[in-house]
Amino acid sequence: MSTEKVAMPWQDRPEGHTEVLWRHSENPIIARDAIPTSNSIFNSAVVPFGDGYAGVFRCDNKAVQMNIFAGFSKDGIHWDIAHEPIQFAAGNTEMIDSDYKYDPRVTWIEDRYWITWCNGYHGPTIGIGYTFDFKEFFQCENAFLPFNRNGVLFPEKIDGKFAMLSRPSDNGHTPFGDIYVSYSPDMKYWGEHRCVMKASPFMDSAWQCTKIGAGPIPILVDEGWLMFYHGVINTCNGFRYSMGAAILDKDNPAVVKYRTQPYLLAPQTTYECMGDVPNVVFPCAALHSVEEDKVAVYYGAADTTVALAYGKLSEVVKFTIENSL
Amino acid sequence: MSTEKVAMPWQDRPEGHTEVLWRHSENPIIARDAIPTSNSIFNSAVVPFGDGYAGVFRCDNKAVQMNIFAGFSKDGIHWDIAHEPIQFAAGNTEMIDSDYKYDPRVTWIEDRYWITWCNGYHGPTIGIGYTFDFKEFFQCENAFLPFNRNGVLFPEKIDGKFAMLSRPSDNGHTPFGDIYVSYSPDMKYWGEHRCVMKASPFMDSAWQCTKIGAGPIPILVDEGWLMFYHGVINTCNGFRYSMGAAILDKDNPAVVKYRTQPYLLAPQTTYECMGDVPNVVFPCAALHSVEEDKVAVYYGAADTTVALAYGKLSEVVKFTIENSL
Amino acid sequence: MSTEKVAMPWQDRPEGHTEVLWRHSENPIIARDAIPTSNSIFNSAVVPFGDGYAGVFRCDNKAVQMNIFAGFSKDGIHWDIAHEPIQFAAGNTEMIDSDYKYDPRVTWIEDRYWITWCNGYHGPTIGIGYTFDFKEFFQCENAFLPFNRNGVLFPEKIDGKFAMLSRPSDNGHTPFGDIYVSYSPDMKYWGEHRCVMKASPFMDSAWQCTKIGAGPIPILVDEGWLMFYHGVINTCNGFRYSMGAAILDKDNPAVVKYRTQPYLLAPQTTYECMGDVPNVVFPCAALHSVEEDKVAVYYGAADTTVALAYGKLSEVVKFTIENSL
Amino acid sequence: MSTEKVAMPWQDRPEGHTEVLWRHSENPIIARDAIPTSNSIFNSAVVPFGDGYAGVFRCDNKAVQMNIFAGFSKDGIHWDIAHEPIQFAAGNTEMIDSDYKYDPRVTWIEDRYWITWCNGYHGPTIGIGYTFDFKEFFQCENAFLPFNRNGVLFPEKIDGKFAMLSRPSDNGHTPFGDIYVSYSPDMKYWGEHRCVMKASPFMDSAWQCTKIGAGPIPILVDEGWLMFYHGVINTCNGFRYSMGAAILDKDNPAVVKYRTQPYLLAPQTTYECMGDVPNVVFPCAALHSVEEDKVAVYYGAADTTVALAYGKLSEVVKFTIENSL
Amino acid sequence: MSTEKVAMPWQDRPEGHTEVLWRHSENPIIARDAIPTSNSIFNSAVVPFGDGYAGVFRCDNKAVQMNIFAGFSKDGIHWDIAHEPIQFAAGNTEMIDSDYKYDPRVTWIEDRYWITWCNGYHGPTIGIGYTFDFKEFFQCENAFLPFNRNGVLFPEKIDGKFAMLSRPSDNGHTPFGDIYVSYSPDMKYWGEHRCVMKASPFMDSAWQCTKIGAGPIPILVDEGWLMFYHGVINTCNGFRYSMGAAILDKDNPAVVKYRTQPYLLAPQTTYECMGDVPNVVFPCAALHSVEEDKVAVYYGAADTTVALAYGKLSEVVKFTIENSL
Amino acid sequence: MSTEKVAMPWQDRPEGHTEVLWRHSENPIIARDAIPTSNSIFNSAVVPFGDGYAGVFRCDNKAVQMNIFAGFSKDGIHWDIAHEPIQFAAGNTEMIDSDYKYDPRVTWIEDRYWITWCNGYHGPTIGIGYTFDFKEFFQCENAFLPFNRNGVLFPEKIDGKFAMLSRPSDNGHTPFGDIYVSYSPDMKYWGEHRCVMKASPFMDSAWQCTKIGAGPIPILVDEGWLMFYHGVINTCNGFRYSMGAAILDKDNPAVVKYRTQPYLLAPQTTYECMGDVPNVVFPCAALHSVEEDKVAVYYGAADTTVALAYGKLSEVVKFTIENSL
Repeated sequence: MSTEKVAMPWQDRPEGHTEVLWRHSENPIIARDAIPTSNSIFNSAVVPFGDGYAGVFRCDNKAVQMNIFAGFSKDGIHWDIAHEPIQFAAGNTEMIDSDYKYDPRVTWIEDRYWITWCNGYHGPTIGIGYTFDFKEFFQCENAFLPFNRNGVLFPEKIDGKFAMLSRPSDNGHTPFGDIYVSYSPDMKYWGEHRCVMKASPFMDSAWQCTKIGAGPIPILVDEGWLMFYHGVINTCNGFRYSMGAAILDKDNPAVVKYRTQPYLLAPQTTYECMGDVPNVVFPCAALHSVEEDKVAVYYGAADTTVALAYGKLSEVVKFTIENSL
Repeated sequence: MSTEKVAMPWQDRPEGHTEVLWRHSENPIIARDAIPTSNSIFNSAVVPFGDGYAGVFRCDNKAVQMNIFAGFSKDGIHWDIAHEPIQFAAGNTEMIDSDYKYDPRVTWIEDRYWITWCNGYHGPTIGIGYTFDFKEFFQCENAFLPFNRNGVLFPEKIDGKFAMLSRPSDNGHTPFGDIYVSYSPDMKYWGEHRCVMKASPFMDSAWQCTKIGAGPIPILVDEGWLMFYHGVINTCNGFRYSMGAAILDKDNPAVVKYRTQPYLLAPQTTYECMGDVPNVVFPCAALHSVEEDKVAVYYGAADTTVALAYGKLSEVVKFTIENSL
Repeated sequence: MSTEKVAMPWQDRPEGHTEVLWRHSENPIIARDAIPTSNSIFNSAVVPFGDGYAGVFRCDNKAVQMNIFAGFSKDGIHWDIAHEPIQFAAGNTEMIDSDYKYDPRVTWIEDRYWITWCNGYHGPTIGIGYTFDFKEFFQCENAFLPFNRNGVLFPEKIDGKFAMLSRPSDNGHTPFGDIYVSYSPDMKYWGEHRCVMKASPFMDSAWQCTKIGAGPIPILVDEGWLMFYHGVINTCNGFRYSMGAAILDKDNPAVVKYRTQPYLLAPQTTYECMGDVPNVVFPCAALHSVEEDKVAVYYGAADTTVALAYGKLSEVVKFTIENSL
Repeated sequence: MSTEKVAMPWQDRPEGHTEVLWRHSENPIIARDAIPTSNSIFNSAVVPFGDGYAGVFRCDNKAVQMNIFAGFSKDGIHWDIAHEPIQFAAGNTEMIDSDYKYDPRVTWIEDRYWITWCNGYHGPTIGIGYTFDFKEFFQCENAFLPFNRNGVLFPEKIDGKFAMLSRPSDNGHTPFGDIYVSYSPDMKYWGEHRCVMKASPFMDSAWQCTKIGAGPIPILVDEGWLMFYHGVINTCNGFRYSMGAAILDKDNPAVVKYRTQPYLLAPQTTYECMGDVPNVVFPCAALHSVEEDKVAVYYGAADTTVALAYGKLSEVVKFTIENSL
Repeated sequence: MSTEKVAMPWQDRPEGHTEVLWRHSENPIIARDAIPTSNSIFNSAVVPFGDGYAGVFRCDNKAVQMNIFAGFSKDGIHWDIAHEPIQFAAGNTEMIDSDYKYDPRVTWIEDRYWITWCNGYHGPTIGIGYTFDFKEFFQCENAFLPFNRNGVLFPEKIDGKFAMLSRPSDNGHTPFGDIYVSYSPDMKYWGEHRCVMKASPFMDSAWQCTKIGAGPIPILVDEGWLMFYHGVINTCNGFRYSMGAAILDKDNPAVVKYRTQPYLLAPQTTYECMGDVPNVVFPCAALHSVEEDKVAVYYGAADTTVALAYGKLSEVVKFTIENSL
Repeated sequence: MSTEKVAMPWQDRPEGHTEVLWRHSENPIIARDAIPTSNSIFNSAVVPFGDGYAGVFRCDNKAVQMNIFAGFSKDGIHWDIAHEPIQFAAGNTEMIDSDYKYDPRVTWIEDRYWITWCNGYHGPTIGIGYTFDFKEFFQCENAFLPFNRNGVLFPEKIDGKFAMLSRPSDNGHTPFGDIYVSYSPDMKYWGEHRCVMKASPFMDSAWQCTKIGAGPIPILVDEGWLMFYHGVINTCNGFRYSMGAAILDKDNPAVVKYRTQPYLLAPQTTYECMGDVPNVVFPCAALHSVEEDKVAVYYGAADTTVALAYGKLSEVVKFTIENSL
């Protein structure tokens, strides 16, 4: 989300660093036990709010039950996370069943903050909710039939309709998954499903050859929608999640204009390579300032903690264009 | 579909037969090579039309490519099937991609015949089309994201909205699958997804313990919507498809009032047990007359031919109520 | 079981037939719908009783629930099977839970008829029961922890203890399985588990290379215990069950003296190759007369019906010795 | 093989038959028990020899051990098969280990009859042997490392070298497999491996979408090498094997000029759909006469028997060209 | 085991630590190469002995062969482990075959120390042995048929019989497994098998949703038998083993009174997350003092080393009761 | 390779170290980002060249595309690696297709340096190339049909023919794999394939029970060919790769004279246990001096970096003989 009104979390590029993105020096910024009941806190979303930031955090408890929690921060780095999960009231439906909630995304659209998450309804599907104040929350109809994950809203309507990225899948560890876009006139009924982009051939870009899924809310830049996403390779020792970027057509996001053949960030530090699920970099949110040419990407590390990486927005775009698959 | 205006295909119950459904004596009614290019013709739909019947047939050609073909019949038993597959013009969308089409269902709603089928769009999903005359056909937006099969429309709007049963799944041979209902105000955007019924526990009713899917267009009876469906058991020699019935609440079809614990029909004859996929009874259409208390169920046999079974509507309902899971 | 007192079911070897076993000319002897509720009747046990025979039959109902039923016959070929499953009273335990019962075996030991079957207790294990009259039945402690199938008692104590063959396995379609013997002083506590024989190497005898399991109650002959058993090969189109024979040491049945490298009977007829599970020959019981040098083996055919095969006892023994693996 | 000197097995096209190939009216021509020890006889090769025909037959014995047997026939239909498997003497190597032998092919090249088969050497690979008289046989070095099947020699040298088609694979039921060609100066060392053709995409020709393998010795026609081959689709009830044809470039058989999108023959008769492995049509040999414009294809049916199909050579070529994938 | 006579290994709760269990500050207490031949030492058992402690240790050698070794310690932390594995003499049987031995447990019952372990006899099953002095060891009949693991004896007879927990399973990496209890009058014959507790539903307690197995010898407390156990979740990067606790009814341990929904200890340290099998906490033994209200749990870390965790016995019980599933 | 002319990389055995091999103190010697585009550098080969060393390095780029790069070093420890992959000109063939290249080996034979690698040609097979100067490179015919990996040439002809070890496999993560040797008169046609050694039984040596593959170019010692190799065990958390050694007969390397039952080196350090594929030690090259009795083994660590281990050649041989499987 754009952070024109408040200071962005930021660190300058470390000397000698030559990659497009660089890690926050004090990563992880949120520890696994940041609230008393948590086994792990990761794959979480943040958004500018008031004179600081609000966030929705995936905190798995020590029974490894998944739920989402609200939090607030002045600087986007130090967070005060609620000790109880978000309670939703009925939004555009009375049916707000939820066996579990995880991997939230948040964005402001028109008049309110919309939250999407992986919602347990006979398997994973995309839950939708909204809030005006991060105090009261309202849950809407699930967007899709199961099985689906990684539902990510565009931050503004496209051609008068809400637009959402998602990754249809199955109900296990899902050895496949591509990114689609769907539209809705009313956040209740969804259609016009289009395939956006698929896992790449192994020989072209192996880090994203098993499955892919959208990450943070897409960022509107001159070239189109900048979409950070995760890609997965299935090694002989399990899945490895890395981060890339794509630029989608502004008016028709089913059209991929550019897409990074190399990854932008892959698991290499101890906190990314060791944890409940080793070798995971999973981006879920980004703050950016076009004026300052900055972007800060929040990502889950090893399904255990929240980490932060920085980059120059223009460099990310340039890299994506120049290293396109 | 109700057949009040034309004579139903029918044979009386054979003497000594004690089951609820009995087979047509000349099964299969449509041979695998009924058109010159066909490898097999099965899992097809019929509907009263004019002074006879129209149908949409799944004919796999000898390259085992799947497509749907129109056909006409005076008596519902002898069919004249087109030698070329249906060509669709654009309906409520310009995006009418289709890698393959199979397992059609047909029903009249309000002003036209609606067709649904398993449509290949980056994997199986539910295609929708309509026709007024079975000559010109129009294709609409796919109802759902992949992966989905067995999309079956209700023959009238429920609470002012179109309603469709479907079975979300994965993109292979799908070792799981439950029946859901979704709603649409306009046949373009779909939502309000509800789980209707699930594969049963092995110990309760093993013939339907692996996956289930709706079959013919539901039939409105006094007790609610009579839904024939298929159930699958995974034996050590592969899947075995049988037929059962359920009665869903008239106003809220997500509520299952009754559901047969025993099957109604299971693969036992040579044409059901031998063919391209042995041991398959797969119902896709039914004609009925409430006045005459008759129902005729069309089903695919062994993924090879079309067969027909008869029953007394009232007996099917009674059996479903009295043998409910 | 020996049938010294009553006439054995029998047909002489058909002219020109050169195999060790030959099929009953009117196979299958019990149809799948021999009782009103049955989907199939197969894998069943018979025993001389009074002036005829009693049996325990696996009848799956049309919900494909598995249970065992008592039956009686004058000639061992024409059977009168109860329409209700056996009800067990508590035997040597109050815990007589049973999620399902299938594949029974029956034998007389000392003072009563003992029945074993595959009993559903958190997965398949070996259930034990007894009867004196085939009217009242008593259920005992399960012999083993799950997962186990094909529990077959020896018809007399060995070294003062009850002895049982079984095939430990997992809880699915079990792509492995060997035959063990265990002992009990009291039909309640079991131990002294010994491996008897294993699935054979593919190159030595492929029809029994995937898994094996004991069939009828072993028959005491001069050479030791004659054990008919089933062997399974995993073809690219599923499991194929055939029948072989082994001779175990009389005093220590963990010692295999001979074991047929060729099968004795494999699925070749339509009723063996077509049905709910094609290509299954599954022996569960045998009647024999040493005096008359006859044996009649009852086997389930295609998991659908009961069939019968005949042989000369001496020839079976001779063949087993001369064609030993 | 060309049969210019002796009468070909033949039946004229049945009246009304419209397919390119038609079945012999007395199929199967070789029964499963044509020799005393056989469980099944299938996937076998024939070649003109003297004033009749010689053949090499896959006869699995009743232990389901696989081996190859010589046989002779006057008319190519009625066969006299040896009761003992072929004994090989050392050919161009002393290492003639063989755990099993199956699926032979035979052809005359230059001065002798060459036989290839699937040879068990730490898994399946391609065995090579030769004979001058079908009395004495000599075994050579295996052509390739395991795992490989369906090794098929070209009937003449290409560019001065022996050429062989094969299908590299794994050591189980192999859910993949493409056709390659390799060359040898001496029948001992092999190289210049080229991919010829691959399993087709599901949407283009599903009957051959899982794996493919060469069948009979290729036939030289004006358009190039006519290669009958088998294709496999993986249904939810197992593998289904059908037959197609391709035409390869005469000088560079890695170049596929044409390839049938539809199958030529698929399992539809009882002897093809029922047997040890249902739904298998597996061609291994062909006799042809260019002069008479005839071809007779021998194929294994259901891994149980040998069957025969006829066609007009020119029609097969024409069909392949006009229905090319 | 109760340690009333000797000083327990102990460290007070670290300041600020809020969990029920805390780790020994010098973990791991036994290094992987503590004996010259060892690749790893883990999943081991200890028991008060004389004026100190004895133990049975799983030491895999550098061929990764599994065996169990005796060891002694004054303080329960510093161990002197034999360089040769335990040699067993015949106990209540001559059949003391053992392909491998791993994961031992030890307890005193009545007159001797009983040892159980995972014993290789045609696959894993439960081996039983005893010693009076940790010098001479005697091996008894295996308790059960394969396949079984995690056999754990109760430290006293229940209703006059020996009682053992175990986890029936298959012979691979076992993606399922529940805890059962069985009884024996004589440590030779076992029966009265009862299911104690099962892997939990994913939504209720995901860390134990794949399989569970008993850990240390149960501890008798006022509320019943305190049983530490391991639970496993199958992540996309493999199995993760954590530790929980349950309280079983004193007289009928098949009755679970309480069971922790949250885990007590999960892999979070480097020595738990990195090693031969990452992310494993596997408890096998516990020392306790009711008087001092202390418990020390020995657990294998990452299948590589032995670690130690402490807790207050009363707090563990209280936590289990208050956080019961 | 022998390094008689230049100084070998070397560090003396650390004090107190008792194993046969010891690690370089500054491991890993080549970082994952040693060239600007690399994601990781591992599984690489080195050879004496001029007054120093040349090498061929597997550098996966940040798209995780695999290719091989030339490099040079004065001391064998500090390397200057080219930033562009090796470009091959046509050698003994025009067909030099390569979808990817990885895991190179290098050796001098007679008149040039030969390179082998895993070459992508419709799946992995063994690519062959040569160079005289590590500036110009020539690519030859692939040695074998797919699927194959770990092709390792002997450094001199055997009986007048080139000889190559390889590991036939499938095209995925390959849960099996044994070592074979093949011969060629001309580096173009290959034959005389012999099985050398197989994965060991689990009970005998579990670290090498899943698959094995040759590592560095074999070293000729008095006892025969010293072959370092990798062995794999499939743990519940994925594959673990360790290193062993075998001694093959000098004249017939299909004869294994000795083979280590214990591993020589297994993943235990952080750089071996953490990285893109945790728990991998994968040897690809060795330098040795018979005079100095030294060997230095280069191995890939965790599929991420290159590490180095040292040993006394005579001790390795002695250990292999004395600890033979």
